[in-house]
Amino acid sequence: MRFSHCDPAGIVFFPQYLVMFNQLVEDWFNDGLGVNYAGMIAGRHIGLPIVRLECDFRAISRLGDTVELGLAVERAGGRSLTLALQCTGADGELRVASRQVLVFTSLQTHRAIDIPPDVREALARFAADPAAT
Amino acid sequence: MRFSHCDPAGIVFFPQYLVMFNQLVEDWFNDGLGVNYAGMIAGRHIGLPIVRLECDFRAISRLGDTVELGLAVERAGGRSLTLALQCTGADGELRVASRQVLVFTSLQTHRAIDIPPDVREALARFAADPAAT
Amino acid sequence: MRFSHCDPAGIVFFPQYLVMFNQLVEDWFNDGLGVNYAGMIAGRHIGLPIVRLECDFRAISRLGDTVELGLAVERAGGRSLTLALQCTGADGELRVASRQVLVFTSLQTHRAIDIPPDVREALARFAADPAAT
Amino acid sequence: MRFSHCDPAGIVFFPQYLVMFNQLVEDWFNDGLGVNYAGMIAGRHIGLPIVRLECDFRAISRLGDTVELGLAVERAGGRSLTLALQCTGADGELRVASRQVLVFTSLQTHRAIDIPPDVREALARFAADPAAT
Repeated sequence: MRFSHCDPAGIVFFPQYLVMFNQLVEDWFNDGLGVNYAGMIAGRHIGLPIVRLECDFRAISRLGDTVELGLAVERAGGRSLTLALQCTGADGELRVASRQVLVFTSLQTHRAIDIPPDVREALARFAADPAAT
Repeated sequence: MRFSHCDPAGIVFFPQYLVMFNQLVEDWFNDGLGVNYAGMIAGRHIGLPIVRLECDFRAISRLGDTVELGLAVERAGGRSLTLALQCTGADGELRVASRQVLVFTSLQTHRAIDIPPDVREALARFAADPAAT
Repeated sequence: MRFSHCDPAGIVFFPQYLVMFNQLVEDWFNDGLGVNYAGMIAGRHIGLPIVRLECDFRAISRLGDTVELGLAVERAGGRSLTLALQCTGADGELRVASRQVLVFTSLQTHRAIDIPPDVREALARFAADPAAT
Repeated sequence: MRFSHCDPAGIVFFPQYLVMFNQLVEDWFNDGLGVNYAGMIAGRHIGLPIVRLECDFRAISRLGDTVELGLAVERAGGRSLTLALQCTGADGELRVASRQVLVFTSLQTHRAIDIPPDVREALARFAADPAAT
């Protein structure tokens, strides 16, 4: 956890966890699903905004802490993904648990669209063998 | 909504709403409750971290949009506050609704403490007459 | 200065001043120049990226400080604006002074373009009578 | 370059480079100098605020770009460090060049202090053999 993540109370400012989880989703697309995230947004004009967010903040993180971020797919619907995200400390202590519902949208209309076929296939591969990624 | 709030999809990046709600809580302490927020944090070493966050993102906001932020107290417990926060568009459309549970803590120990007496009195005054603020 | 602006040292984190100055430029376009900033970016696809930045950080700001931000046009070139920006404390003390060179660009090509005629006229009006805004 | 770094113009928002350079300084302390940065700030109450910042933004970065950040010590004074920082694209193109003067301070008084002896020794080792880090 970096200087720029921390607040005047000396602990990680909570919106920073959401930025980190957002970066994890980005990495998961690129490395876990094999779907180019930047290409999806900027090239294919497909967005992935959040519609529902839940977070439990169980323990604080401090400047210099090493943490691990984790992600699991709870549900892949027709147009949405429900993800379970976690931040744990180096000792395995759960710091933050989040459930997020993300919806695929057209960045032209900002309306929901079906999960693109390549993403759906990648999700199926990931579900069959998450450890392969 | 400002340039710095928006993402490459051209809409407000969701963690920015949480920063705005945090600023609203700050203003509410200073102007609504009459409790100096900076003094509470930096002078009295009392923190107000979040332990539970829920958000529904109902509609997008774009660069240049004028929005209104609102806050209501759902519950004042012994050591915590449950707040309902809203962001609505200029047309009254609900954009984001959030429920947040905030806990008073000692910034020495990061453990929960009772709501300080002056804050409790201010909350009672606010509950009796929110419009006075 | 807000909780979200401050770092674990309890003072404003310096990139936050640059976000504030960016917001000041936005307000100056909308209210000082009478040029709709959001319309320029999102509607007309004209950008205003920075190419040169200088900042002197003379004094710290703390959580809860009231500050004043100021802006003056040092030079309007063919395709660029040189701005002098300041942040002063409530006591008039200079906290941060910045010089910034901003260039008008096409957001299709990200290449420099001439200052648009309406902006040029607005700059002339502003130069003649800054206090009118 | 990540989604959270980019602005509605689809390119990296310039204050984000300064956050990245700040993280590079953090990594350089921890890994290059062998001085625990979090321990210096939070444990020893020694700060390292910036007093002078210069940046040239030569080329834009886009979502998904891979970049390299670099750091060199231009000068170590009695109480300050002058650093040259760079962000280059995967093709070696210089994107951003920055010179920053950082001053060691007491976080009790926010006044400048001499560079701590362990940091001074680490700087001497680093100057003798930067590649060893």
